[in-house]
Amino acid sequence: MKRIFKDCQLVTAEGSVSQDSGYDVQHNMMVAVENGIISAIGKNLPTEGFETVSLENRLLTPGLIDSHTHLIFAGDRAKEVEQRLNGVSYQHILESGGGILSTVQSTRQASEAELLALAIPRAKALIRDGVTTLEIKSGYGLTLKDEIKMLRVAKSLQERLPINIITTLLAAHTLPAEFKHAPEDYIDLICNEIIPEVSELGLADAVDVFCEHVGFSRTQMERVFDAALSHGLAIKGHTEQLSDLGGSECAANMGALSVDHIEYINLKSIEALAANGTIATLLPGAFYFLKESQKPPVNLLRKHCIPMAIATDLNPGTSPFASLTLMMNMASTLFGLTTKETLYGVTNHAAKALGLKQKGQIKVGFDADFSVWDLTAPSQLSYLIGLSPLHSRYLKGELANDA
Amino acid sequence: MKRIFKDCQLVTAEGSVSQDSGYDVQHNMMVAVENGIISAIGKNLPTEGFETVSLENRLLTPGLIDSHTHLIFAGDRAKEVEQRLNGVSYQHILESGGGILSTVQSTRQASEAELLALAIPRAKALIRDGVTTLEIKSGYGLTLKDEIKMLRVAKSLQERLPINIITTLLAAHTLPAEFKHAPEDYIDLICNEIIPEVSELGLADAVDVFCEHVGFSRTQMERVFDAALSHGLAIKGHTEQLSDLGGSECAANMGALSVDHIEYINLKSIEALAANGTIATLLPGAFYFLKESQKPPVNLLRKHCIPMAIATDLNPGTSPFASLTLMMNMASTLFGLTTKETLYGVTNHAAKALGLKQKGQIKVGFDADFSVWDLTAPSQLSYLIGLSPLHSRYLKGELANDA
Ligand SMILES: [Zn+2]
Ligand SMILES: [Zn+2]
Repeated sequence: MKRIFKDCQLVTAEGSVSQDSGYDVQHNMMVAVENGIISAIGKNLPTEGFETVSLENRLLTPGLIDSHTHLIFAGDRAKEVEQRLNGVSYQHILESGGGILSTVQSTRQASEAELLALAIPRAKALIRDGVTTLEIKSGYGLTLKDEIKMLRVAKSLQERLPINIITTLLAAHTLPAEFKHAPEDYIDLICNEIIPEVSELGLADAVDVFCEHVGFSRTQMERVFDAALSHGLAIKGHTEQLSDLGGSECAANMGALSVDHIEYINLKSIEALAANGTIATLLPGAFYFLKESQKPPVNLLRKHCIPMAIATDLNPGTSPFASLTLMMNMASTLFGLTTKETLYGVTNHAAKALGLKQKGQIKVGFDADFSVWDLTAPSQLSYLIGLSPLHSRYLKGELANDA
Repeated sequence: MKRIFKDCQLVTAEGSVSQDSGYDVQHNMMVAVENGIISAIGKNLPTEGFETVSLENRLLTPGLIDSHTHLIFAGDRAKEVEQRLNGVSYQHILESGGGILSTVQSTRQASEAELLALAIPRAKALIRDGVTTLEIKSGYGLTLKDEIKMLRVAKSLQERLPINIITTLLAAHTLPAEFKHAPEDYIDLICNEIIPEVSELGLADAVDVFCEHVGFSRTQMERVFDAALSHGLAIKGHTEQLSDLGGSECAANMGALSVDHIEYINLKSIEALAANGTIATLLPGAFYFLKESQKPPVNLLRKHCIPMAIATDLNPGTSPFASLTLMMNMASTLFGLTTKETLYGVTNHAAKALGLKQKGQIKVGFDADFSVWDLTAPSQLSYLIGLSPLHSRYLKGELANDA
């Protein structure tokens, strides 16, 4: 396949946020694609032997990347949200079977077909919003069988919908009820059975741990990461969301691709991110929905040149948002990110948070995953929420408009 | 036309929020419609002579009503938003021609056809979100000619799209530059020329005033309201958004349908709302986007049984949100409204904020404006943002699915 896109208003998202290039619109550009890979970018490319596609002066950006979701789940927690708004205590909700364990219960009971049917509209919503690559975590199964079931459903979305899927094993999401009195036994199960089997089946690209007082300790996280690394899987963490356990530092020093949430991250951890090239993933939807007040230390992250990714954290309990552009808006409105930072957060930096070396930028040698917008400037991407300005998407240079 | 809707999971939104009825789902219901009006509701209605439509157990609510928008405008302010995030001061933006007056300039320069073309995608976004009735204000023209132009465009949307349009004259939105040194002359223009002409042409259902230090004084508002009332137009106010000028009390005592924003409303004003049946309209999108901290006194409004409406305030500078369900989510998340209150806020109470006595409830004698949802409970309406759960809409009993 040889295809040239012409009449592009191009936003490459290449380089780094602190540079001037890559964000401002380059007008009337051409982008050549050969075998799914960007082969040339310029004002006047030779077109002989290429099929040409005019984007009719629309805005061309890298396809958006949602680098952190929990998109596979059964049940919903709308009733629980309603109860909380009506003044019912979270303790009472937990005691009556609500909270994350209710999602675990529903997800365990659901078949692969049921989980897939529930997941498709969520993925389609993200596709309508311009997403071309989507990370999905397990973590509502919490048994070997059910974690594998979730990951298989996540992988199968790729065959059903025009989207790249990256999967992450998050068996260490919460302690399942049956291990209430034996947390180390659950870590053993993860390290000795789940990780080896998932790795053997090729069902996950990385392993994630929720490191928090209500999740797992730093030591437990280290055990899980050691097992992951020894099976050749990448690692990443849910760290410093509600308190500072030093999980980000620990994860970064072990080579994590990203640390996510990080409202309570400390300076020493940020230095560890800088030293290890670890991405800081901000999840403003969870911050908003949980009515948190502690914001991630954006200025400190900037000062240390830590690339910031932005993701939906799409999940039924703490971030019920299937829109990445809304998260870009929240990252600006709630955390003060510039619109340039929000664009890089869902392209260039999101790719790095997933270890994808050929995605997230419009640059020679990169995959030709594009989003095309009925907009004139990248600052409009997260500006008028609800308008659905997406015109089309391309995956490796092929039109993928069928969601 | 005689049509019966069957297999409905019915949420009527009738009565008041403090009652138990009207919010919980009534299962397997039938709703009969004759000539666009609901004629019967029950479990087993006689169907002879009626066309029957099965809703296949979907959720049926009153069509949503967005009771406060500034949807007609030209230009966009994304660049200004970006500048502010990059640290440029609002003062500097104003001095370089930004802010609301830049929207006024763009809107004055635009033709009716241009304004219509810009408005249609915004209205379609609201339609996709389940809106069947939409209020639109003027206020970016600020001359007789340009205010009329805006109102004509707003009215004409009704012929282009399947939606009810209510129009409001907001000539007293901001002081136009040419009256900078003669604000009373501008009030004269509004009272002596704009209101009479707009009333004569039948272009507005109500008159609105932005009562604020940066807008118009209470005394100026009273003059405009007097003129409106003398021409048979309803009145409503943008009041107590940024400070407490007592505008809400004044508006309520003059018979205002609603007072909108009201973050700084005082107890005496709330008592005036109660005494006059004035609706309190909450606009969480503007609160969120302007990063305000003073919330409307929801508990005090509840205590005085003031019906609360919720609207998008859709506008390019302070609330760029074309989604009413997102505003319901924000009303819950940011202001603590229950999900029942948010449903009434966009149905029953929104109708009252517009003086519509036959809309906003599913009740015998009311217009058969319906939204049909692929949901099972009303608490899900504002829960998983981005999923677009709308199945279909009916206007006066007729399918209106063509947006
Ligand atoms: Zn998460
Ligand atoms: Zn307004």
